[in-house]
Amino acid sequence: MSKTVELARKLEKLNIADMYRKDFYWTWDKTDEELEAIFTVADALRDLRERNKSTRVFDSGLGISIFRDNSTRTRFSFASACNLLGLEVQDLDEKKSQIAHGETVRETANMVSFMADVIGIRDDMFIGEGHKYMKTFMDALEDGYGDGILEQRPTLVNLQCDVDHPTQCMADMLHIIHEFGGVENLKGKKVAMTWAYSPSYGKPLSVPQGVIGLFTRFGMDVVLAHPEGYEVMPEVEQIAAANAEKTGGSFTKTNSMAEAFADADIVYPKSWAPFAAMEERTKLYQAGDKDGIDELEQRLLAQNAQHKDWTCSEEMMKLTKDGKALYLHCLPADITGLSCEEGEVDNSVFDRYIVPLYKEASFKPYIIAAMIFLAQIKDPVQALLDMDAGENTRKNH
Amino acid sequence: MSKTVELARKLEKLNIADMYRKDFYWTWDKTDEELEAIFTVADALRDLRERNKSTRVFDSGLGISIFRDNSTRTRFSFASACNLLGLEVQDLDEKKSQIAHGETVRETANMVSFMADVIGIRDDMFIGEGHKYMKTFMDALEDGYGDGILEQRPTLVNLQCDVDHPTQCMADMLHIIHEFGGVENLKGKKVAMTWAYSPSYGKPLSVPQGVIGLFTRFGMDVVLAHPEGYEVMPEVEQIAAANAEKTGGSFTKTNSMAEAFADADIVYPKSWAPFAAMEERTKLYQAGDKDGIDELEQRLLAQNAQHKDWTCSEEMMKLTKDGKALYLHCLPADITGLSCEEGEVDNSVFDRYIVPLYKEASFKPYIIAAMIFLAQIKDPVQALLDMDAGENTRKNH
Amino acid sequence: MSKTVELARKLEKLNIADMYRKDFYWTWDKTDEELEAIFTVADALRDLRERNKSTRVFDSGLGISIFRDNSTRTRFSFASACNLLGLEVQDLDEKKSQIAHGETVRETANMVSFMADVIGIRDDMFIGEGHKYMKTFMDALEDGYGDGILEQRPTLVNLQCDVDHPTQCMADMLHIIHEFGGVENLKGKKVAMTWAYSPSYGKPLSVPQGVIGLFTRFGMDVVLAHPEGYEVMPEVEQIAAANAEKTGGSFTKTNSMAEAFADADIVYPKSWAPFAAMEERTKLYQAGDKDGIDELEQRLLAQNAQHKDWTCSEEMMKLTKDGKALYLHCLPADITGLSCEEGEVDNSVFDRYIVPLYKEASFKPYIIAAMIFLAQIKDPVQALLDMDAGENTRKNH
Repeated sequence: MSKTVELARKLEKLNIADMYRKDFYWTWDKTDEELEAIFTVADALRDLRERNKSTRVFDSGLGISIFRDNSTRTRFSFASACNLLGLEVQDLDEKKSQIAHGETVRETANMVSFMADVIGIRDDMFIGEGHKYMKTFMDALEDGYGDGILEQRPTLVNLQCDVDHPTQCMADMLHIIHEFGGVENLKGKKVAMTWAYSPSYGKPLSVPQGVIGLFTRFGMDVVLAHPEGYEVMPEVEQIAAANAEKTGGSFTKTNSMAEAFADADIVYPKSWAPFAAMEERTKLYQAGDKDGIDELEQRLLAQNAQHKDWTCSEEMMKLTKDGKALYLHCLPADITGLSCEEGEVDNSVFDRYIVPLYKEASFKPYIIAAMIFLAQIKDPVQALLDMDAGENTRKNH
Repeated sequence: MSKTVELARKLEKLNIADMYRKDFYWTWDKTDEELEAIFTVADALRDLRERNKSTRVFDSGLGISIFRDNSTRTRFSFASACNLLGLEVQDLDEKKSQIAHGETVRETANMVSFMADVIGIRDDMFIGEGHKYMKTFMDALEDGYGDGILEQRPTLVNLQCDVDHPTQCMADMLHIIHEFGGVENLKGKKVAMTWAYSPSYGKPLSVPQGVIGLFTRFGMDVVLAHPEGYEVMPEVEQIAAANAEKTGGSFTKTNSMAEAFADADIVYPKSWAPFAAMEERTKLYQAGDKDGIDELEQRLLAQNAQHKDWTCSEEMMKLTKDGKALYLHCLPADITGLSCEEGEVDNSVFDRYIVPLYKEASFKPYIIAAMIFLAQIKDPVQALLDMDAGENTRKNH
Repeated sequence: MSKTVELARKLEKLNIADMYRKDFYWTWDKTDEELEAIFTVADALRDLRERNKSTRVFDSGLGISIFRDNSTRTRFSFASACNLLGLEVQDLDEKKSQIAHGETVRETANMVSFMADVIGIRDDMFIGEGHKYMKTFMDALEDGYGDGILEQRPTLVNLQCDVDHPTQCMADMLHIIHEFGGVENLKGKKVAMTWAYSPSYGKPLSVPQGVIGLFTRFGMDVVLAHPEGYEVMPEVEQIAAANAEKTGGSFTKTNSMAEAFADADIVYPKSWAPFAAMEERTKLYQAGDKDGIDELEQRLLAQNAQHKDWTCSEEMMKLTKDGKALYLHCLPADITGLSCEEGEVDNSVFDRYIVPLYKEASFKPYIIAAMIFLAQIKDPVQALLDMDAGENTRKNH
């Protein structure tokens, strides 16, 4: 029995009836079985590809991408996932388009979606904005489908909003599952999601938030560490706390990086901006207050500079379990002595983990493909079995 | 018998022998039967897609798009149409390309077309330029094919020139045909193609021209209304008049919006620039006279501002047949109180017609696909029948 | 027996065992039989396409393109080649991507390649840089594949570096082979690869270098002509000299355009920058010395202007064999009186050769496709035979 058949059999036992035609905003909207289904399909698609089996469930169709912030990794992951399933990517480049001043999101959403099966959106710059944009967009498509404007109901893959970064965090988690030999081995493992110094300003909060919102569902001891003033959204902390309680793990906070690293199995040191400052920035942008933004930026850079000791140094790594915690990062990292003078991580630490880091990133296309697959394919178990048994190859000869 | 088979049978009776390998510039180049063939194929492709039938007549091949003006709707419609038929879009972004100062259109045309099946061009900015560019481009490809440089004869879809906007106007018309329950119900219906105020400057004339050039072919009473000074190209008015005479409809002009709206079945209120001013602008651009252009812009904005009463208000709508004329727009509209202070249409009017407006737009991908299909497929009747009877699905499972 | 079967039989006899999974940097890395294999497959793919046979060896997969310099011809050729084989192009636009300041090429390379089968790179601007970038990129992918990060080993097609422009020069050569009725007719033919005046500054050296490095392998008499100071890389001249010795042809240099043109069978007059100046420019860029660059540019333009007599005029053409040498150019050319006041070639000369010039360019997509095919397909002979015998068509009906 192939690995794919095994995974299809596993999928069959999960309750995924509610995934068809549903959008993916945040991991905490989804049940444990739904998340497991995504990991399962991601592994199956990877197995099929490794065995040169065609995984085209679409003969034609479009995946629309909207990147309201720069992106390389996620852009290529989305393109790869769409291509793997037979969809062609059409990017909505807002600079090249005729989106009139004041054109409603409702209109744009319908106009680009007549033949769209999937919508991938990155909108992570402003607190209170990214998720709202996605929701408005997808509500418009739900209406458009209901009103007979669209012949299919496209589904959303959140490629990073102001709240969560689900494709990243689920790729991180699938990497952990593989590294630790199965989800059953994660119980009681200590994860340090910690802030780290970077010479830049204003990185999104969606990764730390996504991590505490997801990793607390696996019975792990998740510690969120940051200097005072670098709080994340309280709603997400509450979700993390509730998750931990339910799964027998824990969610704690500290203002000491060393405390978080102590005996940790997994460390995720990464810069982000303080939530309150990001809220302030959103308001300044809305008011068009350029001087205020510049002033805020200077203030935040100065605040950052007080915490240069928050770095994943060799010394810090020695505090972790056997000095060998699994180091995670969403990439690109600010690497001391390589990409900047002082940054998130020592070059020697980063360099030691390059292979696992790149493997971590390699799960993202499959996670995205699995999200699309489960939202678009009515009978995903049969689809996997058919692709496994089918004669169609990805590459001939 | 499926709808597609029915439509294929209808197509069989139309004289379409001259459509194969032919370009689509203007609707008035085409016979009535040829236009009917496009509507027929558009409906069939939509039916096939709704029934999850594969419509890929191409296994590979490129659709080249050249947008010399911004575009969202048409860009996505062209991409959707190409994808529906199995072609991949390759966009010629003139900013990223090595089109040397002075490189001839003939050279560019051949260089991008070695594996092109379809060329889609938007060039609508300058009177006397857009159509000329397309013609030069396609003549070069005709020669290239004749000379053995190209192995296939790519065909043009005019995605908007300075004269006509055929994919828009044919989508508008197919929408009307569906709304009125068939082309046979259009005779005697009154259409008001009217100018409307917009705070912007210099919108192309191709929509009003395309509308009067096309709608007059269906025995309707077409009224073109605009303030003095907002004339369209006289050649197109002559075409409209000749059409009307042939089909027993009428083509009239007025300088009163109210007169045009009175008892109208269909209204299409939309801003455009005066033809004479657009000709002046073309000359100023060619002369590189930036001050002259700025001066012209100011003059035109001032002229526009004198006609703020030309707006599709609730009061205006009440004048139409039962107060319920079908409201059309190519989108995006300038909506009073939503996208601008004073614009083409009241927000309450626009909002009431959103669903039909979006449906109107939804025909464009199918119109474009039908144009490609009829220009590229030698036996379109058989192709439709085969796709109808075939086992290939667009989405599996 | 079809032409494709004939070509497959020919391919079978060539030693191509070492081409699978190998990158294409420079023609002189490849054996004569390997180059012949590329010409053979290019011709076969063209024959299959002409006969409407599907040449999709990939059901899905990505071709990644990275253009660090502007491009139209090569961009469309790469896109066409990928499409012909079933790959979708995903362009890495460095302006739109989140390539952090200091992000390593190793990281970017892996991040964009999770589902990439082919990498096409143009990096021709700086001496000593282009090839180095490609090598670093592909070494990273070799490691990534070895480390289990990538599930396939993508292969490189050099779309122009600082040293060679292999897809251009091989397209040029395939054109020559066809024009002269076979590779066996090239022995003893005289080729003039000569510098020509252009009003622009700093064109890459990769075309003249690629030409002397490749054309000397066919027993031809290759003359490299340029004014003093316009030397190309000495390493490549040595390769040309060694090639000539091996094949019984010759490689000579002259500072007289007339001498080069005298009795030539083939002429390739084209502007390029002096090697020493390009090295200087690289250093100025690395030092960020903007004034130095401007000063260098002025100096080079003045130097260029001293050699306006180096132009492919009617008089010059009369010196060639029967006044009818085959005129080659990689396009776009600087055409006197058409695209510039004084340039590389007289308009009347250029115009007379337009059809063969465009045919020359038309081989590039097939050359690229053949490079991909031979690096990606394990049994290319069988693949050709199967496509020839198969029922799959490119366009139906």
